[in-house]
Amino acid sequence: MEHFQQVEPFDYVIFGATGDLTMRKLLPALYNRLRMGQIPDNARIIGAARSELDRAAYVARAREALEHFLPADVFNSGLVERFLGHIHYVTLDSSKKGAQWDSLKTLLAGADPDRIRVYYFATAPQLYASICENLHEYGLITPRSRVVLEKPIGTNMATATAINDGVGQFFPENQIYRIDHYLGKETVQNVLALRFANPLMNAAWSAEHIESVQITAVETVGVEGRAAYYDTSGALRDMIQNHLLQVLCLVAMEAPDSLEADAVRNAKLAVLNALRPITEGTAAAETVRAQYTAGVIDGKNVPGYLDELGKDSTTETYAAIRAWVDTPRWKNVPFYIRTAKRSGRKVSEIVITFRPAATAMFGATPASNRLVLRVQPNEGVELRLNVKNPALDVFNLQTADLDTPIRMEGGMPFPDSYERLLLDAVRGDPVLFIRRDEVEAAWRWAEPILDAWKDGKVPMQTYSAGSYGPEQAVRLLAEHGDNWHETAE
Amino acid sequence: MEHFQQVEPFDYVIFGATGDLTMRKLLPALYNRLRMGQIPDNARIIGAARSELDRAAYVARAREALEHFLPADVFNSGLVERFLGHIHYVTLDSSKKGAQWDSLKTLLAGADPDRIRVYYFATAPQLYASICENLHEYGLITPRSRVVLEKPIGTNMATATAINDGVGQFFPENQIYRIDHYLGKETVQNVLALRFANPLMNAAWSAEHIESVQITAVETVGVEGRAAYYDTSGALRDMIQNHLLQVLCLVAMEAPDSLEADAVRNAKLAVLNALRPITEGTAAAETVRAQYTAGVIDGKNVPGYLDELGKDSTTETYAAIRAWVDTPRWKNVPFYIRTAKRSGRKVSEIVITFRPAATAMFGATPASNRLVLRVQPNEGVELRLNVKNPALDVFNLQTADLDTPIRMEGGMPFPDSYERLLLDAVRGDPVLFIRRDEVEAAWRWAEPILDAWKDGKVPMQTYSAGSYGPEQAVRLLAEHGDNWHETAE
Repeated sequence: MEHFQQVEPFDYVIFGATGDLTMRKLLPALYNRLRMGQIPDNARIIGAARSELDRAAYVARAREALEHFLPADVFNSGLVERFLGHIHYVTLDSSKKGAQWDSLKTLLAGADPDRIRVYYFATAPQLYASICENLHEYGLITPRSRVVLEKPIGTNMATATAINDGVGQFFPENQIYRIDHYLGKETVQNVLALRFANPLMNAAWSAEHIESVQITAVETVGVEGRAAYYDTSGALRDMIQNHLLQVLCLVAMEAPDSLEADAVRNAKLAVLNALRPITEGTAAAETVRAQYTAGVIDGKNVPGYLDELGKDSTTETYAAIRAWVDTPRWKNVPFYIRTAKRSGRKVSEIVITFRPAATAMFGATPASNRLVLRVQPNEGVELRLNVKNPALDVFNLQTADLDTPIRMEGGMPFPDSYERLLLDAVRGDPVLFIRRDEVEAAWRWAEPILDAWKDGKVPMQTYSAGSYGPEQAVRLLAEHGDNWHETAE
Repeated sequence: MEHFQQVEPFDYVIFGATGDLTMRKLLPALYNRLRMGQIPDNARIIGAARSELDRAAYVARAREALEHFLPADVFNSGLVERFLGHIHYVTLDSSKKGAQWDSLKTLLAGADPDRIRVYYFATAPQLYASICENLHEYGLITPRSRVVLEKPIGTNMATATAINDGVGQFFPENQIYRIDHYLGKETVQNVLALRFANPLMNAAWSAEHIESVQITAVETVGVEGRAAYYDTSGALRDMIQNHLLQVLCLVAMEAPDSLEADAVRNAKLAVLNALRPITEGTAAAETVRAQYTAGVIDGKNVPGYLDELGKDSTTETYAAIRAWVDTPRWKNVPFYIRTAKRSGRKVSEIVITFRPAATAMFGATPASNRLVLRVQPNEGVELRLNVKNPALDVFNLQTADLDTPIRMEGGMPFPDSYERLLLDAVRGDPVLFIRRDEVEAAWRWAEPILDAWKDGKVPMQTYSAGSYGPEQAVRLLAEHGDNWHETAE
């Protein structure tokens, strides 16, 4: 396992340490990195939250979380106890000032002042600015400190700007790590490898050869217990403005000179800036929004969104957008983006459909070449080629799907996307984090869509839970002779 | 099985009907086509040979051959008897005139004069002209008659021209079917589908993106009982001048307008005419010839070529050639061709190596994309792409081989290449047969190599039976930084 390099000693301070994200994602991810030998013995993970707990009590909660959320084949009692030995806890209402900060201060002062500090904000975004202010106030921001911001960075341009301004007052941009766990996913990063390390793909990666791009992230779960929160967000804010736009950027960007953070982020920003604005006038043509109604998922009846919410709402649980990247490379190539709760399947994928062969040699037009990057399930790459149908005496074609699953060496479980990102912050590599100007460019494109929806320019459609979504989303593609790539789970 | 269409009623006259090719290949192939429902009930297969046999005796031989050469799961007694019902026999020294032709004439006269007649020459090539003359003499050439010529069409330009002139005196070119069973192979035909039905390949199919092409056909068998015959031929005549050059043509040709015979053959001819001549001056640099010495194949000691032959010889059992196609598409792209008897493995494949990515983005240069078309064993297509190595925290690449085996529907055994070609002659589709000008262009390129070898311009190397061939063949590629694609069987 020589390729898993141990990182430098660090203090990882998690604000919101008793919350769901910490317990479900962050602690298991850090445990897995310890298991891989990447966490130095003297590294510390310092939970901070309002709950009046002593270290033992917090460690007990952490142990419980690991027992619950780690797969059995990964859970190792000895390693877990070693991991728990790294954990500390401070009781702290991080948005308030006062003597409560002393224990964190004392704890951090116990280590080398040059030690890497990561402040992870697993709290409500409206607290980000005041936590930063307090970190500053109590002298906790060192040159080697970094802050990791969980999504969502705002709910529109104004709130995003407020958060970025609030944090930016105390941390320079290069110490701010805005997490987007989609960028931690192997297949999403694989877009870079597939495009730029394969001349066969690179040569064809433009409007000349690509007919359309589809980016899909649909899931079977509904909003369930999170209905009240979800209703303040909706599908576009929850998935498209951040995750799926990032995926679009990787698919559409020009080749960066290197994999250095700013080279990649400049290239992504250029795509965001080239997105054709969707206006009140075009929203009805380019976007579809919908809410799920009661239906059947995995053979079980499930209620509709409004029933779960218990009140009326104009929040979408489904969104499909036909986006256009106005650069020469992507002239007239539609980028279809969609996301859904309570879909009939759980699929996250990128589908590149190439233009069909222009030859009349084979009689009928050959099927289009198609590249599918499966983010989940079964991460992998699938390429559809035309080959000769060997069963026929005449020269007929058939399609062949060349598939390569992407697996870890030795069949190890696939790392959660958080695992990589958490340690990237320690390593000081921000390439997979979002720069401020990206967040803002994304909102500049997304907010007018939300406005047009709010203004009733695009009717709210419905779809049965467990279906593929509203008919209108099918029409969005049919206008170009395209179809959504639908696969059984 | 609707796609296996029955062909028109025909009379298939096989000269050399008692020979090895007829027994081992032609009769089993025709039986398989009957099994697939393609042979009409009144079609006739008429064996002609010098042996004094009556129909029953020949049918008995044919039955024996089918028992011996058909796989058990294909041999069906009922079907075999039905097949044997199609068989007739005439005793005939086909190169001689006389009353002996009467029985064939009578037999053929018994059918509709418009019936398709195929004259298959499974005889020594020096007989082709005289058989044609006799067919003419006895009025057996009808407008719907075709002649199928088995290889080799000569052993140099002069003998090839003599054969073609001899046959061409009595048959117009469009009634002459020069068989090259390599063109009957699925994977060889698949070159056309892969190139022209897949824009992803087509866009990259030139010197801009392709670094080299390798065409390999090596086998573990030696010359064994055929030593005396083989010694008059050699690897270049036996495999390269015909089969492997045809493969090269399909890889290198410009897109034909259609799959019509002359469109494809014109495109192939243009490649043959663009082959850079190999001269006495360049033969030592561009070609390697060798003979196998004693060695080990499949754990068994086998003798060397000269021991098998029992005398000295300058005939090569191995040939490797670096060929150049002097067209803009293939500027500076080497086409490496090799063939061997007594190789360590039995492989026939086409390997397209693309140029590596020109980016410095990933640190080390990514591996080259590579497309392998396996002719045998395990017919299929394999594409090597670079993907992200998921095991690493840094962005490293790994290669992934996307593979699609080419299989018959329902897992039926793969048809022998003869099966398709035999019925193509009935159907009157010459696209997979070689036109006269192709044969001549191939000799125009090959003969100077043979001359240079005869003149001692290229030393005869040796290689142990069971090895990968002589070291000099490795150097032929190493000069360009290339390696032979070696796979275990």
